[in-house]
Amino acid sequence: MGIGIIDTLISELTRLPGIGRKTAQRLAFYILAMEDGEARGIAQAIIDLKDKARFCSKCFNITSNEICDICSDPRRDSGIVCVVEEPSNIVVVERSGSYRGRYHVLLGALSPIDGITPDKLKIRELLKRVDEEGIGEVIIATNPNTKGEMTAQYIAQALKDRNVNVTRIAYGLPMGSDIEFADEVTLSKSIEGRRKI
Amino acid sequence: MGIGIIDTLISELTRLPGIGRKTAQRLAFYILAMEDGEARGIAQAIIDLKDKARFCSKCFNITSNEICDICSDPRRDSGIVCVVEEPSNIVVVERSGSYRGRYHVLLGALSPIDGITPDKLKIRELLKRVDEEGIGEVIIATNPNTKGEMTAQYIAQALKDRNVNVTRIAYGLPMGSDIEFADEVTLSKSIEGRRKI
Repeated sequence: MGIGIIDTLISELTRLPGIGRKTAQRLAFYILAMEDGEARGIAQAIIDLKDKARFCSKCFNITSNEICDICSDPRRDSGIVCVVEEPSNIVVVERSGSYRGRYHVLLGALSPIDGITPDKLKIRELLKRVDEEGIGEVIIATNPNTKGEMTAQYIAQALKDRNVNVTRIAYGLPMGSDIEFADEVTLSKSIEGRRKI
Repeated sequence: MGIGIIDTLISELTRLPGIGRKTAQRLAFYILAMEDGEARGIAQAIIDLKDKARFCSKCFNITSNEICDICSDPRRDSGIVCVVEEPSNIVVVERSGSYRGRYHVLLGALSPIDGITPDKLKIRELLKRVDEEGIGEVIIATNPNTKGEMTAQYIAQALKDRNVNVTRIAYGLPMGSDIEFADEVTLSKSIEGRRKI
């Protein structure tokens, strides 16, 4: 207490993950000194997100419209769909700049023990899209962990009898990493997935 | 681009210091998942700060009122004033929990080379308070660097002929630190300032 109006913002900011007291304080005083429009821009972006965010009715990405920007972009290749667990994964794939197809968000990964069965995910909707949209390839980009693998296997199985290529993103050593520090599973996957150079 | 409404918030958050693209992304998706009122609370605290923040007319702390919470708190000792460079320094001293007096914010430190001469700081206002408020002690808590030292010396000189004790916060080894890693200046100040145990 003691400094009222700025203490309020400091407390509010500490609700965010990874923002401790000191960081919150630094941010609050920075916001205080910021150009007025810039600071209000941050506040407005938060309000807009809470007011308008919804799932794309086609791919379950986050959007402020019925159909998201990616699904409605005619320059994106509609013949290929990248399946991810969460909307946040789309941001990561987009940032790689290497993908020009569409997406499908499952909104989770299979985890029967937690009650996350296939009907809880947007799998039915994926199958429907494959049947209706003339999709030639489904890239499964679920996480390379137990749940993600199980989900990938389930989807591959479900798509087996449909006329579509199903692929899985590659496992291997992260670029810029050191083979010395690679875990055994990754390293063996990396050897297994070796390619001619 | 591609994910519209959440990209906007990600971009806005990257304006903040120490918030890179990845952190901004993590925060934005966290805000998206947050309870509505909590997320709006953050936005509102930013707006309130920009709408209402001003300097206390007495001590130049940040406040939403004419006089800040500390200056108007009758339980605080009005006979002692801690002089700091910036309002953010007050938060730090308050957090230490060891101070129950009042403050005076200079809004900077002397730096003649940058044109920061005494008249650019709230020094005149400090002298006026000493003359009018029956202050018994002025603790100078400017930074322990060249500018802060120069400012401390200047203030001590200006208060010399007034009937007030002028003190400077102690220099020494930070608690929990290791003498092995102390720089020479700090260590010599620490020895100079030794106390009987």
